[in-house]
Amino acid sequence: MKVSTPALPMKQKAAVYNSPGSVSIDIVEIDIPEPGPDEVLINLTHSGVCHSDLDIMTNSWAGLPPTPQGQVGGHEGVGRVVKLGSATGNSGIKIGDRVGVKWVASACGNCEPCQMQSDSLCFNQKVSGFYTPGTFQQYVLGPANYVTRVPDGVESAQVAPLLCAGLTVYSALKGSMTAPGQWVVISGAGGGLGHLAVQIASKGMGFRVIGVDHGSKAELVKESGAEHFVDITKFPADDDGAAIINHIKSLTGGLGAHTAIVCTAANSAYSQAVQFLRFSGTLVCVGIPSGERKPIASAYPGILIAKQLKIIGSAVGNRVDAVEVLDFAARGIVKVHLQTLPMEKLSQIFQDMKAGSLLGRAVIDLS
Amino acid sequence: MKVSTPALPMKQKAAVYNSPGSVSIDIVEIDIPEPGPDEVLINLTHSGVCHSDLDIMTNSWAGLPPTPQGQVGGHEGVGRVVKLGSATGNSGIKIGDRVGVKWVASACGNCEPCQMQSDSLCFNQKVSGFYTPGTFQQYVLGPANYVTRVPDGVESAQVAPLLCAGLTVYSALKGSMTAPGQWVVISGAGGGLGHLAVQIASKGMGFRVIGVDHGSKAELVKESGAEHFVDITKFPADDDGAAIINHIKSLTGGLGAHTAIVCTAANSAYSQAVQFLRFSGTLVCVGIPSGERKPIASAYPGILIAKQLKIIGSAVGNRVDAVEVLDFAARGIVKVHLQTLPMEKLSQIFQDMKAGSLLGRAVIDLS
Amino acid sequence: MKVSTPALPMKQKAAVYNSPGSVSIDIVEIDIPEPGPDEVLINLTHSGVCHSDLDIMTNSWAGLPPTPQGQVGGHEGVGRVVKLGSATGNSGIKIGDRVGVKWVASACGNCEPCQMQSDSLCFNQKVSGFYTPGTFQQYVLGPANYVTRVPDGVESAQVAPLLCAGLTVYSALKGSMTAPGQWVVISGAGGGLGHLAVQIASKGMGFRVIGVDHGSKAELVKESGAEHFVDITKFPADDDGAAIINHIKSLTGGLGAHTAIVCTAANSAYSQAVQFLRFSGTLVCVGIPSGERKPIASAYPGILIAKQLKIIGSAVGNRVDAVEVLDFAARGIVKVHLQTLPMEKLSQIFQDMKAGSLLGRAVIDLS
Amino acid sequence: MKVSTPALPMKQKAAVYNSPGSVSIDIVEIDIPEPGPDEVLINLTHSGVCHSDLDIMTNSWAGLPPTPQGQVGGHEGVGRVVKLGSATGNSGIKIGDRVGVKWVASACGNCEPCQMQSDSLCFNQKVSGFYTPGTFQQYVLGPANYVTRVPDGVESAQVAPLLCAGLTVYSALKGSMTAPGQWVVISGAGGGLGHLAVQIASKGMGFRVIGVDHGSKAELVKESGAEHFVDITKFPADDDGAAIINHIKSLTGGLGAHTAIVCTAANSAYSQAVQFLRFSGTLVCVGIPSGERKPIASAYPGILIAKQLKIIGSAVGNRVDAVEVLDFAARGIVKVHLQTLPMEKLSQIFQDMKAGSLLGRAVIDLS
Repeated sequence: MKVSTPALPMKQKAAVYNSPGSVSIDIVEIDIPEPGPDEVLINLTHSGVCHSDLDIMTNSWAGLPPTPQGQVGGHEGVGRVVKLGSATGNSGIKIGDRVGVKWVASACGNCEPCQMQSDSLCFNQKVSGFYTPGTFQQYVLGPANYVTRVPDGVESAQVAPLLCAGLTVYSALKGSMTAPGQWVVISGAGGGLGHLAVQIASKGMGFRVIGVDHGSKAELVKESGAEHFVDITKFPADDDGAAIINHIKSLTGGLGAHTAIVCTAANSAYSQAVQFLRFSGTLVCVGIPSGERKPIASAYPGILIAKQLKIIGSAVGNRVDAVEVLDFAARGIVKVHLQTLPMEKLSQIFQDMKAGSLLGRAVIDLS
Repeated sequence: MKVSTPALPMKQKAAVYNSPGSVSIDIVEIDIPEPGPDEVLINLTHSGVCHSDLDIMTNSWAGLPPTPQGQVGGHEGVGRVVKLGSATGNSGIKIGDRVGVKWVASACGNCEPCQMQSDSLCFNQKVSGFYTPGTFQQYVLGPANYVTRVPDGVESAQVAPLLCAGLTVYSALKGSMTAPGQWVVISGAGGGLGHLAVQIASKGMGFRVIGVDHGSKAELVKESGAEHFVDITKFPADDDGAAIINHIKSLTGGLGAHTAIVCTAANSAYSQAVQFLRFSGTLVCVGIPSGERKPIASAYPGILIAKQLKIIGSAVGNRVDAVEVLDFAARGIVKVHLQTLPMEKLSQIFQDMKAGSLLGRAVIDLS
Repeated sequence: MKVSTPALPMKQKAAVYNSPGSVSIDIVEIDIPEPGPDEVLINLTHSGVCHSDLDIMTNSWAGLPPTPQGQVGGHEGVGRVVKLGSATGNSGIKIGDRVGVKWVASACGNCEPCQMQSDSLCFNQKVSGFYTPGTFQQYVLGPANYVTRVPDGVESAQVAPLLCAGLTVYSALKGSMTAPGQWVVISGAGGGLGHLAVQIASKGMGFRVIGVDHGSKAELVKESGAEHFVDITKFPADDDGAAIINHIKSLTGGLGAHTAIVCTAANSAYSQAVQFLRFSGTLVCVGIPSGERKPIASAYPGILIAKQLKIIGSAVGNRVDAVEVLDFAARGIVKVHLQTLPMEKLSQIFQDMKAGSLLGRAVIDLS
Repeated sequence: MKVSTPALPMKQKAAVYNSPGSVSIDIVEIDIPEPGPDEVLINLTHSGVCHSDLDIMTNSWAGLPPTPQGQVGGHEGVGRVVKLGSATGNSGIKIGDRVGVKWVASACGNCEPCQMQSDSLCFNQKVSGFYTPGTFQQYVLGPANYVTRVPDGVESAQVAPLLCAGLTVYSALKGSMTAPGQWVVISGAGGGLGHLAVQIASKGMGFRVIGVDHGSKAELVKESGAEHFVDITKFPADDDGAAIINHIKSLTGGLGAHTAIVCTAANSAYSQAVQFLRFSGTLVCVGIPSGERKPIASAYPGILIAKQLKIIGSAVGNRVDAVEVLDFAARGIVKVHLQTLPMEKLSQIFQDMKAGSLLGRAVIDLS
C-alpha cells in the first residue's frame, strides 16, 4: 500500500544510555536518520523492553567492550516504513508497510552462518541497541531485506516482544525436533520467554507441555496451555532435584520427557533436565545463567551415552522463524502477557526489572 | 546353504570368571547348551577381547550388581550356526550360516527403544558375557532374530571386533549427521575404537578426518585415512587446551570442525571438543571417562547457545548398524589392527590390557 | 491387571466369506482358536468395516490369489486379552489388557523393512481378514508383540477404525514432514480417511488445513478443523482443474500449499495436487485409484524439477504410529464419525458400501 | 590479496546470439560493463558450454519469451575480479579473487525460496546468458554476494562445468538423502552430468554406484568410480524395461537400489527407475525429457504407496552446494571429462552438440 507520506519531521525523541555501566537513561531529542541505499526508515510505534537491554546498559556481559556512551537502546521495535533507500526496490517493502526490528538488526546474508540459514549467528551482525542505535526512539533504520514484515491481525504492542522473546522460544521449540503429541518440559514456564514457549508449544505445535516455575505463575502457565504445572517451591531444596525429577517422569507416564526447553537462567534447571529426559531425549539450552560460568552439572558423557541424549544450544532464531512466529500471533495462537507504558517510564521499567518486580513484558508506546 | 551337520560334541571349552572382582580367568570344560525355540546354537571360531570385558570381570562399574561367579565372558563372537531352535523358521537363518554375537546379545524387539530402532537401549536387553554367558566359549546361543549375519569377503577374526568397536564408532559417525566433505575430529584416533572410526569416516563416508592421539599412533592414524594427525604430546599441558584448539581450528580453515567424535576416555578431550567446533557443530560422546564422574567442563549453556552447538551421546549401535558396518568390511573399507591369539592366552591378554601394553585389538581363536 | 478369567466357551460366532468374488457373507459358529507360544487370544468387542474388506471379499485386486473360501474377514478389531501363549512373558501383555488388531496382523520383526521401522511393508506380513482369519469374529489370535495396546479414555468402537483409517492418515501426515503452521490440503476431506486426517492435522499437529470434497461434506470437514472448505462441485469440470488449483493457491496466500494428502481415489485429485503445491511442496499418495492404473498425470519431470517438488507414497503406518494415533484419540483430539451396528448387519453394511450410501465408518458390535 | 590492477581496456570480445531461434553466433566487440554498487567485474578466462545454451539460442523451451536478439550467452564462467562496486565491502571479495558465475547469475536473497536456502528457485533470479548477458565474453558482471569463490588447487577450465553440471548433480545426490554404503543408480552415467555424478557419489560421498548408459561409455563410467556398468544396448527394447530392471535389482542383492538419479532426458529411464527401487527408495529427477511432456509412466499412486517410494525434483543447486562441489574438485575427487577450445570454435561446438557428436564437456578459453 503506497500511501502519501506527510513531510517527515527533522527531530525525534530517543532514550539514550548516558552513563553505560549504571541504570541511567535520558529522553533526548535527536536527528532523524537518513536511510542508506539498502535501508528503510521506520516510524516506530512500540518497542519491547527486554532484560538484555538492562544488561547492555549496565555493561553486564563480561568480555565485551562497553556500550557506547549516548547509545539508543532497544531491540524489539515495531512501526511503519516512512522512507525507502534508493536500492530497496527488490525487497518488496513499500511506504506504509508495518515492519519489525529484531535483536539482530542486520545480517550480511553472505557469511557461512547466513548461507546456512543461521543468520542469527551472522559473523557481521549488528545487534540493535548495543553497538548500533536501537528501538527506543521514534524513527529507526533497518535493512530492507532484513526487517520483518508484520502480518495483519495482531496489535503492534503484541508484536514487539515476539520479535525477540517469541522468536527465541519458537526457534528453540522448532530446533528440538519434537513431534506432535510428545512431552515438552518448559522450565521457567511463567517467565517472559516461558509463557510464550508454553503457548506456541501447546496451541501451535501440538506438543504436550509440562510447565515448571514458582507457584505464583501457576495460573498464567495453565492458561497458556500447559497440561501440568510443577511448582518448584513444593519440592525439597536439598535432594539435588531427585523429587522433582521423579515427579516429572511420573507425569509423562514413567519414561520421562522427550524434550526440555530451559528458559530460566538457573543452573539447577539444566542439571535436572538431563535427568528427567527419556532415552533419545533432547535438552534445549535457551536461558543463560548469570554469574560464574558453570558446566551443566549432570552432563556426564556416561549418562549422555547410556540414554543417547542430546543437548543443543539455541540462539535467537533466524529471519524465517521471525515470520513464522508472527504468523502464529496473527492467527491468535500466542498472546504476550504485557503492559504498555509511555516512553517516559523507561527508567522506572528498568528499576523494576532490576528489582524483579516487573509484571509481564513491558512495551513502551513511542507514538 | 543347508549342510549336513556332523553330530555335535557334548562338551566344550570355555573361559570363565572364577573370581569376579579380580583379573582371574579359567579355561574349563562345560556343557554345550541347547537352543530354545527362538534361538540358534553357534560354533564360535573367534571372539574379540574388549576393555569392557576387563571391566566386567573386575566389577569396575559402580552401581551394578557383581558379575556372577563362573560367568563366561566375551561379547564379540563369530562362528557358524550348527543347530536351529524349533521356532526359527521365519528368521531365514540356516545351518552353516556365519553369524555374529554382539554386546547386546538379545533385545526384546518390543519395548519403546526397540520400536524406535534403538535396540541397543532395549529395556530387556541381555549383555553378552555379563549376566548371560558370552563368547569366550566354543558354542554359544543367540536369538535367531538378533544375531548378525556375516557377509562373505571378510575374515572371521576381523569381524569379531567390528561387532562391538566397529559398530560403536559407525553408529556414532552416522548419528553425527556429518555430511560428506565436512571435517570430523576423532579423539583417540589410534585406539581400538578410534582407528576404526578414522577408516570408516574417511574411506567409507567421505568425511575429512583429523585424528588426535599420542605421537606413537601417528602412522596408524595416517594409514587409516586421516588427512591430518595432531600429536597431543606436542602441545602444552597447562593452557587448558588453548593451543591444540587453535591448531585444530586452523587445520579446518579457521572456522573449526563440523563434528568431534570423542573415542578416548579423557575428560580433557571432551572439554576441548566443545571449543574447536564451528557454529552448529556436533560433539558425539563415545568414550566413557573412568574414575569420578565429571560433567563436560566447557558445556556451559552460554557457549552452547552462542554457537548453537549440539552434544549427543551415542551407545553401541543397533542391529541395522551392525549389518552396515560388516558390509563396509566386506567391501574392504575397514580393517581392524589386531592380533589373533589362542584362547589360552586370555589371561595374559587381560594382564597386558590392564598394564596398557596391549598392541591393537586382541582376538582369540576358539577353533 | 491380572484378572481371573472365567472358563472360555468352545465356540464363537464369525462372519465368513462363503463365496469370495461376490458380496456374500454368512454368520456361522466356529471353534475358538488356541494361541501359539507367541500369541494371545483376544475376545473382540468391536470390529471396523473398511472398504478394503469389500475389495477382499469380492477379489477386486488384480494380480492377487483369490480370497480363501470360508475366510473370516475384518482387520480393525478391538477387545480384551483372555489367554496368553506360553512364550509371551516378555511382551508385557496381561490377561484383561485391551488391545487392537491391525491390517498388518503380524510382522516378522526381522526383515529389512521391519528393521527399518517399516513393519507395514514387512516381507512376511499377514494381512488380517485376507489370507489369515480376521476380526469379524468374537475371538481372534494376535502376536503378543504386535497387537496394539489401547489406552484408557477412548471407547472401543472409536478405536476400531483408528487402527486402519486413522493409522493410515496419521502416518501420511507424519511422513509428509509438514511443520506446524504450514498449509496442508486434504483431498477427500469428508471421507472415512479424510475426516480423520483433517482432525489429526489441525487439532493434533498444528497444521493449517484446507479440506476438498463434495459440498455435502462441508459441515463435517469444517467441524473436523479445516480452516477452509473447497467444494469441488462448484468448479468447472472441463478446465483440467485450473480454477480449483488457482483457488487453493489463493487460499494459501498465493504460493500454494506446503503439502497435499490425497485421501480420495480420484486420479484428478492427484494431478491437481502437483499443481497447487508451492516450491519444495510434498504430495503424499494415500488413496489408490481403482480401475485401469494411470500415472499421476502432471508428474512431469520438468515440473517436479522446476519447483523441486516431492511425491511420496505412504502405506498403512507402523506399530509406533498405531500407538501414537490411539494416544491422540485418548486425548480427545480425534473422533471417528461412525455408526455401531450388530454383527448381523454386516451383509447390509457391505451392500450399502457398494451402493455408496453408507454414512460414516461402520463398526460392528461383537459382544 | 589486493593486487594493483592495470588499467582495464574499454572493449572486449563477446559471442552473441544474432538470430535467436537458430544456431547462429557471432564473435563481436562490445563495451566492458561497469559494476553497480553491489557488483564486481570479472575478467573471465573460461566458460563452459552447456546444452542449455543451445536450447536458449534456439528458443527451444516452450512457453518462454524468445531470447533477446544480440544476447551474450553462457552460464559457466570463471575468472578473476578486476573491479569492485562501491558497496561490496561486506562481501569479502577482493581484486584478484578467482570467482565463478553460475546458471542463476543473481538471486535476490530475500524471497521465500532464498530465505529457505533454495536460491536456485529465487523468484527474482537472473539466468546467465538468457535474459541477462552471460559468460561468453571476456568481462562479465556478478553480484559480490552471489558469485562463487573458487578454491586453489583446481584449474579454471575444470571449474567452469562444475558451476552448472557439477552443481546440479551434487545437489541431486545430496537431496536424495542417500547414506554412505547405499546403492545409487545413475542413468546417463557417461554423459556430461552423469560422469560427474558417478565421481562425486562414489569417490566423494561413499555411495555404491551402478552406472547405466550406452556401451560406448563403459570405460568412462567405470573409471569414474561405478562398481557396475549396465549397457542399455544389451537389453531388449520391447519388454518395457523388464530385463534391465531385473538386472539392476540383482546387482543390488535383490532388493533394488536405494536411489536413482536420472541424469538422462529419456522418459523410459524415469519409468524404469521407479521399478528398480527398493522399498522406501528415492528417484531424483534431473534430466528434462524434450518433446511433448509426458508423466513418469510408472508413477502410479498404487505402486508408490505399496513400496513407500519417493520421487523428488532437483533443480540446479544453491550457493552452498556450489562452494561444496568446488571443494570436492579442489581435493581431486571430481575431474571433468572436457576439451578446451578457443572462443572462435563456439559455433562449431554448438553444431557438434546438435549433431550429438561432441565428446565430453566443451570449455572455451576466453583469455
